Amino acid sequence: MAEEKRKFRVEVCFSPDEFDLYKQEYSVVVAIDVLRATTAICTAFEHGAEKVIPVSTVAEALVYKNKGYMAGAERNGKIVEGFEFGNSPFSYMGEAIKGKTLVLTTTNGTRAINIAAATHKVIIGALVNLDAVIAYLIDQPDDVLLLASGWQGKFNLEDSICAGAITEALLESGKYMSDEDSTIASLFLFKEARVNYFGFLKASSHRRRLRNLNLNEDIKYCLTPNQTRVIPVYKDGALVKMEL
Amino acid sequence: MAEEKRKFRVEVCFSPDEFDLYKQEYSVVVAIDVLRATTAICTAFEHGAEKVIPVSTVAEALVYKNKGYMAGAERNGKIVEGFEFGNSPFSYMGEAIKGKTLVLTTTNGTRAINIAAATHKVIIGALVNLDAVIAYLIDQPDDVLLLASGWQGKFNLEDSICAGAITEALLESGKYMSDEDSTIASLFLFKEARVNYFGFLKASSHRRRLRNLNLNEDIKYCLTPNQTRVIPVYKDGALVKMEL
Repeated sequence: MAEEKRKFRVEVCFSPDEFDLYKQEYSVVVAIDVLRATTAICTAFEHGAEKVIPVSTVAEALVYKNKGYMAGAERNGKIVEGFEFGNSPFSYMGEAIKGKTLVLTTTNGTRAINIAAATHKVIIGALVNLDAVIAYLIDQPDDVLLLASGWQGKFNLEDSICAGAITEALLESGKYMSDEDSTIASLFLFKEARVNYFGFLKASSHRRRLRNLNLNEDIKYCLTPNQTRVIPVYKDGALVKMEL
Repeated sequence: MAEEKRKFRVEVCFSPDEFDLYKQEYSVVVAIDVLRATTAICTAFEHGAEKVIPVSTVAEALVYKNKGYMAGAERNGKIVEGFEFGNSPFSYMGEAIKGKTLVLTTTNGTRAINIAAATHKVIIGALVNLDAVIAYLIDQPDDVLLLASGWQGKFNLEDSICAGAITEALLESGKYMSDEDSTIASLFLFKEARVNYFGFLKASSHRRRLRNLNLNEDIKYCLTPNQTRVIPVYKDGALVKMEL
């Protein structure tokens, strides 16, 4: 029991709508939106972005765009009219990104980030920076909530599986414990999915949604783990690259 | 596709708190609280209860109790002070129940029932009446939402597994389709659990909660499928036994 007490907690929250039910007990929140916001954000920093400002509404994004910022806006998987890009990771690569402050609003991910950032330390997790996030969490000293962005408030598979992957590694480190049913479910879903994320998620509603928008290349990229070591962290109203 | 269109939908909602996100698309709701409200309600009808009035607050239950009704009240797994019983199925067996109108309030189950009953046709599902519920749903003509009662608004494993069991049978009947990620997750969790519900749920938070209250016999009963064919249905403010 004494041993147990010294361990940190890691738990999974399936939707930003449920954040209030969980938030009291944790200091650090990992915001996860595998398809595609947090993947795109990690990609932007990997390609040299200086800051990413997550905003919750298209109106806010437009204000920044009119001020000359590079602004991306996505709703229901599509680029919002009047914007050049949405949340495709491929829009956040290359020289154009280097040193820039970007602004982004998406259906689920930026909402989850801003809900948590109001009260908690927030870092950005995705499959593309999976091992970096795990390594960071193993060495930090607080209880951790893995916040899935879901889909319009509903449970989604891809974020839950990413949360399960992080949870399994943290439990195996021996430094963490967990006891929420949502966390147990995420672990089982990850065990099912780990052999082939792409195959496992074939039936998932959001993958279907994106496939119908001819975004299979995006999906493959988003479901390929460990393409970067960057960990974006929320600081003073914007995401910046964590200095490790 | 035409084939697809003729099929009814079955989907899973993990918590009464999320009901608003789902309710528009379904006509029938199956309220599920395996540990222990919906199991106790099925048990009461199996033992000859005439009606069960589900109330959301202890205050309401007390009003009925003071009028002379058999009233049960449970909060956080325990019998509420001033009541003789809570939601243990073993309290709803035997001659004393026969012909009675019972009143029940529980932490999660009665809340889920009342939230759904305000707008939808509600039937009561549990593992103890699993095959009866499946048989009924296969023959009825509407889209179905399986509403897990959860735990204080959070996801729970036992209700999700029961929902997965119902979903698998409905999909195998060929008359239903589903596409929510929550439903896909429930199916995977059920496949993991089906061999041994009791073992699978060993780690679940609510089973732990009840075990600490020395309620292992309750848990074993609640996790034993098909002990009754009764299907309670909500009608005019109370649950009654469905006439099949």
